[in-house]
Amino acid sequence: MFVYAKDRTIEDLGSGVTRKVLAHDGGLMQVEVNFEAGAVGPMHSHPHEQLTYVLSGEFEFTIGGETRIVRAGDTMYKKSGVPHGCRCLKQGVLLDTFTPQRDDYLPK
Amino acid sequence: MFVYAKDRTIEDLGSGVTRKVLAHDGGLMQVEVNFEAGAVGPMHSHPHEQLTYVLSGEFEFTIGGETRIVRAGDTMYKKSGVPHGCRCLKQGVLLDTFTPQRDDYLPK
Repeated sequence: MFVYAKDRTIEDLGSGVTRKVLAHDGGLMQVEVNFEAGAVGPMHSHPHEQLTYVLSGEFEFTIGGETRIVRAGDTMYKKSGVPHGCRCLKQGVLLDTFTPQRDDYLPK
Repeated sequence: MFVYAKDRTIEDLGSGVTRKVLAHDGGLMQVEVNFEAGAVGPMHSHPHEQLTYVLSGEFEFTIGGETRIVRAGDTMYKKSGVPHGCRCLKQGVLLDTFTPQRDDYLPK
């Protein structure tokens, strides 16, 4: 029930992006994703619904064909199957929450 | 799809607690809850599953009979129906995420 930041492993995804999977238990999963300035989250989609909360930095996001700039405290809702991607304008961290959890983010 | 922090209303819940409902669309809802030091989130439960991410401050949380202290970056998973509550030790903000959304948090 309690998941401490200090106990979580940072995964290097390459190209200036790292990921830290936080609490998850089937119905929900939370993940911190750190981007260096200029790093890109390529356009993709998935059946999971997703909320993204901007913890820090500045990002240009495209969701369902709409492109906007977001900063700390801004949130984005990505419905099931809606294509989305981002470009990091100033180094920062996104907090992604999925329902259901992303099983593909768990150790094999 | 895009919800800006600056556009959201802060609700004063009294006793040192304020709330700001962020992005939500049925399946997920995200909410910032600000606590002054000493403020209390009384023990309660609900059918929604919930993740809590500590944005800042220090909190003593009790979940399902277990009590621990959490700080920025720590996360907690509250399964459906599990009793939980907190006491704020140092002023801070929690980010709560629910599935499904909390309809009782929406304007009547």
